This record gives sequence, C-alpha cells and structure tokens, in this order.
Amino acid sequence: MLTGLRGRLTAADRQNLLRIMPAKGVCAMNGARFSKIYTGDLRVPMRQVHLSNGSTVTLYDTSGPYTDPALETDVRRGLPRLREQWVRERRAAGHPVTQVACARKGLITKEMEFVAVREGLDAEFVRQEVAAGRAIIPANVNHPESEPMIIGRNFLVKINANIGNSAVTSSIEEEVEKMTWATRWGADTIMDLSTGPDIHETREWIIRNSPVPVGTVPIYQALEKVKGRPEDLSWEVYRDTLIEQCEQGVDYVTVHAGVRLEHVPLTVRRKTGIVSRGGSIMAAWCLAHHRESFLYEYFAEMCEILARYDVSFSLGDGLRPGSIADANDEAQFAELRTLGELTTIAREHDVQVMIEGPGHVPMHKIKENVDLQRELCDDAPFYTLGPLVTDIAPGYDHITSGIGAAMIGWFGTAMLCYVTPKEHLGLPDKDDVKTGVITYKIAAHAADLAKGHPRAQEWDDALSDARFEFRWEDQFDLSLDPETARAFHDETLPAAPAKTAHFCSMCGPKFCSMRISHDIREAGFAEKAAEFRQRGGTVYIDQPGRVSPPTGASTSPV
Amino acid sequence: MLTGLRGRLTAADRQNLLRIMPAKGVCAMNGARFSKIYTGDLRVPMRQVHLSNGSTVTLYDTSGPYTDPALETDVRRGLPRLREQWVRERRAAGHPVTQVACARKGLITKEMEFVAVREGLDAEFVRQEVAAGRAIIPANVNHPESEPMIIGRNFLVKINANIGNSAVTSSIEEEVEKMTWATRWGADTIMDLSTGPDIHETREWIIRNSPVPVGTVPIYQALEKVKGRPEDLSWEVYRDTLIEQCEQGVDYVTVHAGVRLEHVPLTVRRKTGIVSRGGSIMAAWCLAHHRESFLYEYFAEMCEILARYDVSFSLGDGLRPGSIADANDEAQFAELRTLGELTTIAREHDVQVMIEGPGHVPMHKIKENVDLQRELCDDAPFYTLGPLVTDIAPGYDHITSGIGAAMIGWFGTAMLCYVTPKEHLGLPDKDDVKTGVITYKIAAHAADLAKGHPRAQEWDDALSDARFEFRWEDQFDLSLDPETARAFHDETLPAAPAKTAHFCSMCGPKFCSMRISHDIREAGFAEKAAEFRQRGGTVYIDQPGRVSPPTGASTSPV
Repeated sequence: MLTGLRGRLTAADRQNLLRIMPAKGVCAMNGARFSKIYTGDLRVPMRQVHLSNGSTVTLYDTSGPYTDPALETDVRRGLPRLREQWVRERRAAGHPVTQVACARKGLITKEMEFVAVREGLDAEFVRQEVAAGRAIIPANVNHPESEPMIIGRNFLVKINANIGNSAVTSSIEEEVEKMTWATRWGADTIMDLSTGPDIHETREWIIRNSPVPVGTVPIYQALEKVKGRPEDLSWEVYRDTLIEQCEQGVDYVTVHAGVRLEHVPLTVRRKTGIVSRGGSIMAAWCLAHHRESFLYEYFAEMCEILARYDVSFSLGDGLRPGSIADANDEAQFAELRTLGELTTIAREHDVQVMIEGPGHVPMHKIKENVDLQRELCDDAPFYTLGPLVTDIAPGYDHITSGIGAAMIGWFGTAMLCYVTPKEHLGLPDKDDVKTGVITYKIAAHAADLAKGHPRAQEWDDALSDARFEFRWEDQFDLSLDPETARAFHDETLPAAPAKTAHFCSMCGPKFCSMRISHDIREAGFAEKAAEFRQRGGTVYIDQPGRVSPPTGASTSPV
Repeated sequence: MLTGLRGRLTAADRQNLLRIMPAKGVCAMNGARFSKIYTGDLRVPMRQVHLSNGSTVTLYDTSGPYTDPALETDVRRGLPRLREQWVRERRAAGHPVTQVACARKGLITKEMEFVAVREGLDAEFVRQEVAAGRAIIPANVNHPESEPMIIGRNFLVKINANIGNSAVTSSIEEEVEKMTWATRWGADTIMDLSTGPDIHETREWIIRNSPVPVGTVPIYQALEKVKGRPEDLSWEVYRDTLIEQCEQGVDYVTVHAGVRLEHVPLTVRRKTGIVSRGGSIMAAWCLAHHRESFLYEYFAEMCEILARYDVSFSLGDGLRPGSIADANDEAQFAELRTLGELTTIAREHDVQVMIEGPGHVPMHKIKENVDLQRELCDDAPFYTLGPLVTDIAPGYDHITSGIGAAMIGWFGTAMLCYVTPKEHLGLPDKDDVKTGVITYKIAAHAADLAKGHPRAQEWDDALSDARFEFRWEDQFDLSLDPETARAFHDETLPAAPAKTAHFCSMCGPKFCSMRISHDIREAGFAEKAAEFRQRGGTVYIDQPGRVSPPTGASTSPV
C-alpha cells in the first residue's frame, strides 16, 4: 500500500522513519516495569504494571504494537491488519457495513466485543449505546490496522491529539513520529490536520502505521486542490476528496456543514470573528457566492458516501468562540441547532456521528454547552477543544484548556481534543505533543473519577498506596509519566537508598508526615481507635480539655 | 534590623543576595513594554502595559519596588517601610491595633483605602467585608514593608507561593531569590516553610525584603527547638516561638489547633493517613501524651498574642486528605467543625482569621468543601491547597491541582496555595516556582472571570483584540508570561516581519481563519449583516437551500 510512497521518499527519509520507531525489545513506557498483555479471544492489549509488593495494576493502553517487545514493526510495511478478517466475515454474512447499523439489528460486532473488554463493560451494553447513537466506534473498513475504541459519555473519556504539517514548517517523518509518540503517551485518536504539500502521502504513512482511529478535515485538502482560493471550492471537488480519504482509511471526518449562509452575519459583531479554519473557509465561500453552503445542501449525499466505509461524522463547530467574550453567543448556538438537524439525517443513513464543541468558554458557561448539545443533538457524543477558561496565558494554553476540559468531561463530554503549549503561537514539536497528551490524560482521568467510572479510582488508589508505603519506584511506574517523576525525585535525592527512604527532600526525615502517620499506627493506635469507636465514636462529647468560653473584649462579628 | 545577620553571612553570601536582586533600571517584566505607575494619594502600585495601538492596560501588580526602575533596592537594607507612618498614626490616635477591630469601630484604615484602590472597589465596602470577617488584610504592624492586600470571596482571588528550605537542601539566598521571583510573577503572599537550620535568619531576610504578606507555620521552628522530637513540644516552647515570629513581622500563621486528640483515631482507616506536617506533629504529640492538643487548649491565649501585632490566623487543616480515596471523610470534616468553633473565638478577640482547606479532592466533591466551610466557619475566607483532582500524575501536580484550584476559586475560595511540578517529589527550584505561580494565576483569573469580577474580563478582551488584529507584540506583552509567549512564536517564525504577519506557523497564510474573518468583514459584510438584521435577524426562517427531508433507509435512532 506504500509503494506509491517509496518513489517519493529518499533513502534518508526511510531511515528517519525507521529511526523513530521504538526499537524491538525496548521498553517503550520509559522506565516503567511493565508488560504488554492481551486479554480474551480477541487479544485486547493492556498495559500491566508490576509493583514491588508483588501485585500488578492493569491499565488501558493506546500505544499499539510499538510497545510490544515481542513484535517486529516496519513503518514501510505498516501495522498488522487486526480487523481485516472481521470485516471480511461481516461482508460474507451479508451484515451491514456500519457499527450503528449492526447494533440496531441487534448484532454485536467484534469491534463491540473488543471495546467491551477494553472498558471492562458488557458487550450488550456497548451495542445498546452504539444503537442509540450515544456512542460511536470510529472504524473505517479500510483502516484494519486500528485497535477498536469507543467514544461515548458512558465510557472512559477519550482524548485526541492533533498533528499535521503546515505550509510553513514540519515534514512527513516528523508527523509520523508525533503520531507514534502521542499514542504512546495515551492519545485515543489522532487527527491529521496537514495543510501543506504532500497531504495524501503524509496521511498514508500515518494511517498505515496508526493503531488508533485517524480523523481529518477534508476541506483542507480540497482547498489545496483549488490552490487555496475558498471561492473556487465546489461540491464536486469536495466529494472527490472525501471519497479519496474514505478509500484511504480515514476513520472520522470533521465536516463544517453547520456553517450556513444565514449564520455568517451573526459573527460580524464578535470580538474574534470565526476562528475555525474550516468554518472560515466555508463562510468565505458562502459570502463569495452568496449561496447556502454546499456542505449543508449535499449533506445527505455525504452520508451515503460515509456509510459505504463506516466513516464517522465529526460535525465541526465552525463558529466556535475564539475568545471569552464570544462564548455561548448567538452564532455558536445557531450552528449547534443546525448540527442537531444534521445528526438526525446522519443517523437515518446509518452513519455514526459525534459533535464538536468549543473552544474558549469561562467556567460558569461550560455546563450550558453540554446540556444544550445533549438536547439539540439527541445525546450524540460531544467532542470539545478544551475549552480554554481564559485568554491571557498564551504559552500555557494546555493548562487554561485542561481546566475546561476536565470540567466539560465531567459534565458528559465523550472526547477531549488536546491543546499544546504552542496553541496560538506555533506548531507543536515532540515535547509539546507529550505535554499536551499528558495534560489531557489528567483531564480525562479526573473526569472519569468524578463520573465514578468503576475502574478509574483503582489507579489513584494504587499510586496513593505506593506513596504512603514509600514504594518510590512503584509511585514512579504508576504515574502518567514515570520518566519525569523519577527525574524530579532524583534531582534532590539521587542516591539509590533514597528510593527506599521513608521521607523525601520536601520535608526531610524529621518532618515527614507520612512517616509520623506510620509511627502513630505502629504505636498500638489501632487498639486506641477501636476503644474510641466502642466509646460511641462520636467526636462531640464534652471534653475536659475544651477551650473555656471566651471572655472580655468585643462583640460577635457584625 | 539585619545587623544580626551581617555577622552570620560571608561576603560571598552578601554578593549572592545582591546578584539575585533585579538590577536598577532593568525591566523586570521580562520583555513587556510596561511601566510601573502609582495611583492616588497612597501611591498604589500598578503595572501599565503600553500597546502598539496607543492604548494602555492597567494590571494588578504584586512585584513590589523591585520592578520600579526609578527605585534603588538593597537587600541588606530591606524595602522602604510603606506602612510605618500609618501604624504610628493609629497608635497616636488611640485606635485599635487590628484591621478587624478598626473596621468594627467604623474606621477605614489606610490599608483598607489601599486595597480598595488596588481592587477598584469602594473603601467602605472593604471595611464592611473586614468587619464581617468575610475578608482579612494580613498586615503585621512589624512588617511595614508590605503593600496591603485583601483576602476574601468578594475580591480578586489571590494566590500564595510556598518557599523555604529543608534539612536536606537549599540555602538562604535561594529562598530570598524565590520570594522576589514568585512575587514578580504574581504571588500575592509568600509562606516560608523552612524546616532546616537558620530558620530565624532565613525568615528575617525574607520579611525585610518582601512586598507581600509573609506566612509561616510556627510549629516547624518550635520542633527545631526541641531537636525534632514532637513529644518534647510544649505550650511554653510554642508560645515563645509564636511571640518571636510576631515580633519579627510574620503576617499570618498556620496553626493546626483543629487536630484534637479525639480526631486522631478517625485517620487510622485512611489510605494515606495524615499528610499535613503540622497535623502529624500535633497528632504524634496528642498520642504520646494521650492529652488534648495544647494548641486547642491554649487557643484563647494565642488569640491575645496575635491581637497585639495584628497577625492573622490561618487555621490549618492538619487532617486534610492526602489522596482521592480520603477526600471529604469523617476526619477532615470533624476538624473543620472544630475550626468553626475556633473562628468564633478568634473573632471575639479581634483577630483576623482564614481557614485552610484541602488537598486531594475529586471534582464532584469540591463544592461540598466550600459550602460546608462557609456554613461552619461563618464565611471566614477559605484558603485551599489545590485541590489535586487526581493522584496519578506526580511531576504534573501543578496541573492536577490547578484544575481543582480554578473550580474551588469559582465556588468561593479566597486564596489558592500553589503547587509546583515538584510536589510529592522534591523541593521546587526557581523554574518550578515560576511554573507554579503562572499556573495558579491562570486558576485565580479563571475564577475571577467565572465570578464576574468587574475588572477580570478587560484583560482577556485586550489580549483577544490584539490576537484578532494580529498585534503580536501586544499579544505577548499582555500574556501572563511574555517571555515564553514570544519565544514560542519565534521558534517557528523568528523573522521580524512575522511580528506583523497576518498569520502564524500554525496554519500558514492560506488557512488563517482570522485573516479570512477580516476579509469577510472588509467585503462589505457589515451591510449585508445589517440587511439581514432588518429582515428580522431570525436564523430559522425557511430557506430554499435547506436539505430535503431524508428519504429511504432506516428508522430513527432507538
């Protein structure tokens, strides 16, 4: 499948692409004592962390074959085609193509079984959620290399990492490297937002080597085909681009069909206008022709194309706010209503659909976004970019947006699109991608905890136990970024004994609260506690030592 | 005042201390085109940012005289004694010592006037909030160098930066450097948590050179005096230490008087026991003597001491949860009830008081903490550490806690104690302090926005305007960290022309949504918009371009 590429890349290019792949046998989890295990008949991959007390913790793993020392990977050959046989069998049996169509017919697909094991839930529950449109499994029949995952409010909150080059900078191998790097740290899906040259080739390398679903924004490539002039776009150019990408194996496509001619005037009084690339391109087209958007007019035909490949819609929020001032405004919610209409149409064509959301939103306006989206889009999964809760920290927008992402995830958003420290300033490099992914894993996991996902707290508990028992190596290995945790500890206490020390450099031995806590327990305090509980355990019986009622000066507070 | 020190420090030490002070005339805001201005008769310092379009933005400034190029500072001499005259005048007039006592007598102090200007609010409103105990102005009469600030739910959310050395690492000059560094980036108060040798000297240098209130935890120094044996602590040792620190100029003290004998058993079943240093020390004392805490028994006497200097209480949460598993448990809330009792006693002694809060709390349990604290502590200001919303990211706990901090700030917490990336792993260095402060400025400002503080959104709007108008330099200068924003932009587009370019490296010229938005406006769209609004402006009139009702396949979603 990559033959076309071989001609285009130099030997040096290929060497680069090989170099960036994890070498066979190397532990890709950066120092953690972990192993890759496979669960059930479908061999669902998991990451197992081996603790010094003999126990193990099993974690969700998005890193694909690259982190299995037993597997040989070759970027030129692409990943093993896990799903090829499943798709063939469904065809042979005359089953529908899309996951939602199967679900509605009562069929539990292999993909559903796979995600059920991955999430620790029942396969029939997965089927029901997909059938209801409350969850989607983005899985193009032409991307058999991907390991199935599910996006829905009743599952673990997922995160997406955007990669892709622009006309100004970066190269194919950098983008492939970012993809493997992002999935290694926990990205559940990848979006290739390339806008420069070689869009098709960049995407080919990414899809063939990606263990996670790949999303795109087809309008970018369509615009390249008309030399960057929005007014020259047409349904025909767009349709051909869409088919090209579906054929290639893209799993979900962002389509800004909600940006209608009548919405554009609503953006004129905004502080930051239209900040979505696709949204601004379609607005420019509508304006140039003073006609309704062709994406809106031909939406039904688009559904028919996507249904043939089981490509999912990610209905883009082309009018999302680009500043705190523009949050939750008329333009944004007018588009959301249109996305609701389109959701109904997509479902009637058996196409899976999720809805994209903002953007820049102050904390007190976040919940309204989720509630309105659920109501207008009949519980279709929500997929938001952040939101950033303030505009004043360029250079730290992974944090300004991580705050909003954690909250909106708790409120019911199914997938969070990461933001890197370079947002608003430049293209992310490898370190920025890692920082963005880790920040969003934090946000997603915090949301899982707040939503009470059965498996979420086990991880926190395991790490907290390690912390309280001074099992430093376990604490490092259980953290989202073992390498960094270990490095920070060693900066001040590098010596090996410190790894077993019952204190750290923060307080030193004398002041270690946890050590004192242990002393308290060891001092036969358990019995005293029992005694105390027998006494009724109540804390507010009168005590001799009680502070005598205040005397003298002053009145009570005004 | 530093004579005692001169003897103790070598010439090299002094050179170091001088070196770390911002050189005269250097712009301490790291590249921003800003000036230091002074407002009103009390000369309240503000930071003014000069924009390329001729307008200015005035921001709250915590950095003190160090960022005024017109002022000469000498760490050996200490800062100018801004408040010395005010305090003297109050004494001469026979006015009460503490801000709360003055407020209750209907007196508006100079400190109240100062914070009123600083916050852009009315001085009488400030007085009422202080009188009611809903806000405090931590201002020891012996720390005249500090610029008054206020901590209360109806004012800007404040942040505290912890510094201080431990037995294991760091030195006096490092700590003084961290103090000036933290206030430069926006720390509203500083806590000196030193536990190693030279506690008194370290504190002396910090207080004399600190433009912000300084807090401490006296039990740490008391424990040093008894050679680190908690059981050897006594009220007498503690009282003498408290008086020593009040004399020296500490503005607020953390006192773990809520850790009572009867609370300790409640921690035995916890996952992470007691994680507060002070809390664990007092628990150990209670256990060793099987007696009620002397901090609790002698609380009224402590109030009399603090009242003489107008030192504020920060009632410590010695039983705060140290893990997600322990959040909002019986031990935590039992202590909070005791802090409520103590708040009443402190107020009856005319002592200002705030309440410390957690810690580690999942998002869905955060609000309960604020609501219960308000109820039990009669609206005394809440001062929380984070909270961290998950335990799984050591190395990134500025982020796990920044999420909780923003939320709890929105819910009404008055001051947020920062957490650095080194939390749980080691002592923060200068970079960690900056990262912690910037992260918490983000959290505090996001909370101000969500609470609708009148001045908060002006800042976001100014930056968003600069962004939309491609005023890159203004965008950098208005950001929390101009240096980093500029550096990130220049990584991919270093050339000077890029500073005025109507695009950036993220999308390149062809795909710049903001540029297209401008084209849309320039294309006489304003008129079209007006026309549209005349037409009734409604978005949902029937359109010819509307998608035809779906036909054929499938039923509506299950």
